[in-house]
Amino acid sequence: MNNHAEPHGTAVATDETLAAIALSVRSLAIDAVESAQSGHPGLPLGLAELGALLFAEVLSYNPSNPQWFNRDRLVLSAGHGSMLLYALLHLSGYDLSLAQLKQFRQLHSQTPGHPEYGLTPGVETTTGPLGQGLATAVGMALSEAHLNALFHDEQGALIDHFIYVITSDGDLMEGLSAEASSLAGHLRFHKLIVFYDDNHISIEGDTNLAFSENVEQRYSAYGWQTLSADAYSINSLRQAVQQAQSEKQRPSLIRVRSVIGYGSPNKAGSASVHGSPLGSEEAQATRQALGLTEQFFIHPQATSFFEKRRRHLQGREQQWNRRLKAWLSLDGQDQQQWRRYHDSPTLLLEHVNWPTFRAGEQVATRKASGALLKAITEPLPQLIGGSADLAPSNNTAMPGSSDFSAANRHGRVLHFGVREHAMAAITNGIALHGPLLPFCATFLVFSDYMRGAMRLAALMKLPVIYVLSHDSIYLGEDGPTHQPIEHLAALRAIPGMRLLRPADAQETIEAWRMALEERSQPTIIALSRQGLPVFNKPERNWRSAIRRGAYIVLESTSPPECIVVATGSEVSLALEAARQYGAGLRVISMISREIFEMQDEEYRRSLFPSGTRVVVVEAATRHGWEHYVSRPSDLLILSDFGASAPGKEVATHCGLTPQELLERLKS
Amino acid sequence: MNNHAEPHGTAVATDETLAAIALSVRSLAIDAVESAQSGHPGLPLGLAELGALLFAEVLSYNPSNPQWFNRDRLVLSAGHGSMLLYALLHLSGYDLSLAQLKQFRQLHSQTPGHPEYGLTPGVETTTGPLGQGLATAVGMALSEAHLNALFHDEQGALIDHFIYVITSDGDLMEGLSAEASSLAGHLRFHKLIVFYDDNHISIEGDTNLAFSENVEQRYSAYGWQTLSADAYSINSLRQAVQQAQSEKQRPSLIRVRSVIGYGSPNKAGSASVHGSPLGSEEAQATRQALGLTEQFFIHPQATSFFEKRRRHLQGREQQWNRRLKAWLSLDGQDQQQWRRYHDSPTLLLEHVNWPTFRAGEQVATRKASGALLKAITEPLPQLIGGSADLAPSNNTAMPGSSDFSAANRHGRVLHFGVREHAMAAITNGIALHGPLLPFCATFLVFSDYMRGAMRLAALMKLPVIYVLSHDSIYLGEDGPTHQPIEHLAALRAIPGMRLLRPADAQETIEAWRMALEERSQPTIIALSRQGLPVFNKPERNWRSAIRRGAYIVLESTSPPECIVVATGSEVSLALEAARQYGAGLRVISMISREIFEMQDEEYRRSLFPSGTRVVVVEAATRHGWEHYVSRPSDLLILSDFGASAPGKEVATHCGLTPQELLERLKS
Repeated sequence: MNNHAEPHGTAVATDETLAAIALSVRSLAIDAVESAQSGHPGLPLGLAELGALLFAEVLSYNPSNPQWFNRDRLVLSAGHGSMLLYALLHLSGYDLSLAQLKQFRQLHSQTPGHPEYGLTPGVETTTGPLGQGLATAVGMALSEAHLNALFHDEQGALIDHFIYVITSDGDLMEGLSAEASSLAGHLRFHKLIVFYDDNHISIEGDTNLAFSENVEQRYSAYGWQTLSADAYSINSLRQAVQQAQSEKQRPSLIRVRSVIGYGSPNKAGSASVHGSPLGSEEAQATRQALGLTEQFFIHPQATSFFEKRRRHLQGREQQWNRRLKAWLSLDGQDQQQWRRYHDSPTLLLEHVNWPTFRAGEQVATRKASGALLKAITEPLPQLIGGSADLAPSNNTAMPGSSDFSAANRHGRVLHFGVREHAMAAITNGIALHGPLLPFCATFLVFSDYMRGAMRLAALMKLPVIYVLSHDSIYLGEDGPTHQPIEHLAALRAIPGMRLLRPADAQETIEAWRMALEERSQPTIIALSRQGLPVFNKPERNWRSAIRRGAYIVLESTSPPECIVVATGSEVSLALEAARQYGAGLRVISMISREIFEMQDEEYRRSLFPSGTRVVVVEAATRHGWEHYVSRPSDLLILSDFGASAPGKEVATHCGLTPQELLERLKS
Repeated sequence: MNNHAEPHGTAVATDETLAAIALSVRSLAIDAVESAQSGHPGLPLGLAELGALLFAEVLSYNPSNPQWFNRDRLVLSAGHGSMLLYALLHLSGYDLSLAQLKQFRQLHSQTPGHPEYGLTPGVETTTGPLGQGLATAVGMALSEAHLNALFHDEQGALIDHFIYVITSDGDLMEGLSAEASSLAGHLRFHKLIVFYDDNHISIEGDTNLAFSENVEQRYSAYGWQTLSADAYSINSLRQAVQQAQSEKQRPSLIRVRSVIGYGSPNKAGSASVHGSPLGSEEAQATRQALGLTEQFFIHPQATSFFEKRRRHLQGREQQWNRRLKAWLSLDGQDQQQWRRYHDSPTLLLEHVNWPTFRAGEQVATRKASGALLKAITEPLPQLIGGSADLAPSNNTAMPGSSDFSAANRHGRVLHFGVREHAMAAITNGIALHGPLLPFCATFLVFSDYMRGAMRLAALMKLPVIYVLSHDSIYLGEDGPTHQPIEHLAALRAIPGMRLLRPADAQETIEAWRMALEERSQPTIIALSRQGLPVFNKPERNWRSAIRRGAYIVLESTSPPECIVVATGSEVSLALEAARQYGAGLRVISMISREIFEMQDEEYRRSLFPSGTRVVVVEAATRHGWEHYVSRPSDLLILSDFGASAPGKEVATHCGLTPQELLERLKS
């Protein structure tokens, strides 16, 4: 039995109640935006009835526990309309006070300009950059479909909820949402229900300026059910939602024909109401037209309705909790699996049979990563992920698991297709939904296509893992379009993004462990296409030293004459040069510059004693390395694009050779 | 009269000729990939007949002059299939020798792994990252439509050509191509003809793993004509092309049902033939199956056919040149306009009535940029551009010009919709087509969505201009999702990308001039949302000094005690602090770090004498600034995301105030 088929307890809300809620939403939105002198009144005014219906009847949630695991997820992809969400969270009883609404867009408030995950209870994901919310919601739908198939009692699936999304024209113009929607149709995520706020207005004016495609036909081509409704007819909205809920094969797009800024006598239906306050005069005219005599008005009927509904919803969670408890008490294989899904990865990692590599072996770090994945697939059942159509190159298959598909919800190997941006956003959605541990993969150079979503992962502090192989010019023949040059610098610059570039197969295992242990930051693992020698680690405790971001991999005299710091594949280049250099050289492998730079000064000084010359080698642009060296020529880096040729020849062409390093060391 | 309606002169090629060409293409592709031991044989084998038909009958081009302006453009969006293009360029008589084909994917050859613009005659754009070629072609179609409407003689439009694109499944999965295709349908670019290589194979296996949408229905929803053809029936291909050419309202998508690796007895139709050489055994089996007895075989009939066709095509250009010359001799207004389109911007800029600003005025640099655009719209008729639905915020309207649309091809204001990535790729296409000067605009933070295309602009050295406003946390209330932190660093890291961050309205005018004068690099102009004081420039020659990337905007004693270097809006912060500091401070405005760092040592030393303390102020991450300072605390920069609040409060929250700078200076 689907928990949505339960009688609501509170009967369907009356038209009067819904009108009272919608009126309150409009009042709060107008006045919060006026008070901030900044914000977007158009969407909350236009969709107040839809919002009222969702919170009064449709959504299964518990304002007293926003983390209730089996809640429906609501994603406001059109994040600029944040006041719609804040108003409804307040009205429905989330811990978001009226005082907070009055602090809309002010420092340290819980009501920022765009919804921020972690800051406001009930906000499921950070939105604002268009397209992200919808694509993230596809990741949530993926998690629901997977968990729905895995865990069930006699009543049916234990995890069984809908994912609702509110999108704007802008969301649907973004290629990101196109990628995600195509994949959602392919994977038949019928729990995904997307409202499209079809108000014909974008910032530059009528959407006809740039957007005249047939959206419904497009979604139908993706394999979606397409419906439409009138934003100001509750029955029409209600009917569309019910039809979407009862569809068992396809995601649904509900085109909601609306008027932006509905209720504003002079600005409704115009671009001016999208992203600016109404202005005191028009705000007053709007209040008057709506029959509002006070600011921040909350209709008593809305208050009393939501009081009852909150208790009802609390009961709904309690009922589910009892059901879960009863099921868990059976303590069979499925229950053990459930518990493992909720265990910390660190604990589960204790049971891993780690792949080992002998010094001297030639192993591409992408291959070592593949071996690692093979080893952790079984002990880490909540690991799920895949590649944007580069699995054979990224080595991200998970032998022992199957493909996730419309027919096989148990699979853990994701095929994203050539859709990098949606892949990263979907990965965010999986991490947000919990408890799965997602990773995704492509070539490092194509991180350019994913940055919008990667930035949000960093902003939301999500523990997602990016496997980015072919991490330098050494990939060779595919040429400059495929050779990352600036990407290490560009990714390191994102606040809170961790970049690990392991230097050999053994370091790759540690990189994965560091990524899996980290629960509050995204991690990039940059991997080589080419084989790299596994080198001897002179430090016995190198596995703990590497967790400090950098450690000594070669030391011939102490104190050293000169220090070479390298990352990834350039560490073996440095070791090769050191063999020819003779005594006096220290070589440091810096798997993560960010982690190293967060260490205490004592550790940093122990690696880089002041006054000792430092030379940096990395097959990337110099940005962020400058302060390690005392003269520019001690940066053996790249400043231009690569070339199409076998990897070693490209490296020679770019001056990235042990000989070149040796010459610089001797100069 | 359309020049494509001309009799071909060489009659329609016989089936025998086309088969001879296709056989030669297959031979060259197999052997070039085998010889490189690297590459993608699948596409050239699969589409050899289509390639033969295009070069033998369809394309209007001149191998003896690849730059002929009225040529058809052919874009291989599926750039990995580069050997298809190289083989046909060689066969049809471009200056690309057989020796070059034998050097496929080798250093310094003209036949890199993916086609590179500027390296190989006949390559219209660099492709490889999927989706880029198609979106770039939309920019070429835009240029054609605009020029087609502008210039005509009694025979009709002077610029009148098709844009053909070969795409793969991967191209059509990318959101980038979705954005561009939606816009192309909206703008009714009927000269755009896209072949979709529907071979059901992607790298991970059958496309059904991730891609089951109805592509034709989707394109039909975009407003395209959709056709289909059999890759191995010349008549079916020919008919589809003719139907596409005769369509006068819609772009056309021709789904070409093909077999990847066609001709390979054991690998055709499989993923293994996509991106790896056949292997010597299978290569031999394929040669045998095709009846090939030698390697790099060129059928004599192909050679003789293309000899005749080359002469014919040369004649076609000569005819067009005569027509153009005759028209130009009329020397009316249109002819003068044509000449202005081909003049250098620098020359045209002489006639600009530059906007002026008085010291002390408060002007957001985005507004100064808007005033500049207004001033150059008329004197620079070839300037064309717009925003991704943020024109009112980016201030990129061009008063005096009209909107470019399906109904008005004369317009120069582009409405890209909320499609940042396509916008950047389309802008590349406009720059590649010539002679228009394109710019595009959005918020700086959304450069994340455009990086794929921006990188290609840098790689191709295209003179495109990006107007990126709202360039820091000072944008305020929209919050962290909209506040760029890492973007200055990430963009500066792209080789060949120029970033200008003007500090006031006067510098903004110079930034635009620098951008327009630069013809071999893309330029970003980063602009403030907030008002900034126009400051006094003590250097009389500051307009030439600023072209060296940095110059002194305040000097109180010489030599200075300390130097503060700032960019953009932080220059006025530095000046404010300097006023409070008293004598001894030098303040430098660094509009472009990249340009400054390319200056001779003398100039660099004149600004930064060795031994003098330097403090850096920029509302962005530190990457690339580290070597300017001698201690980390002398970097007044950001290391975390911003917050939603009024701009000044966010700045205070982030410690970015004159007081904070003052304290550091005094410490």
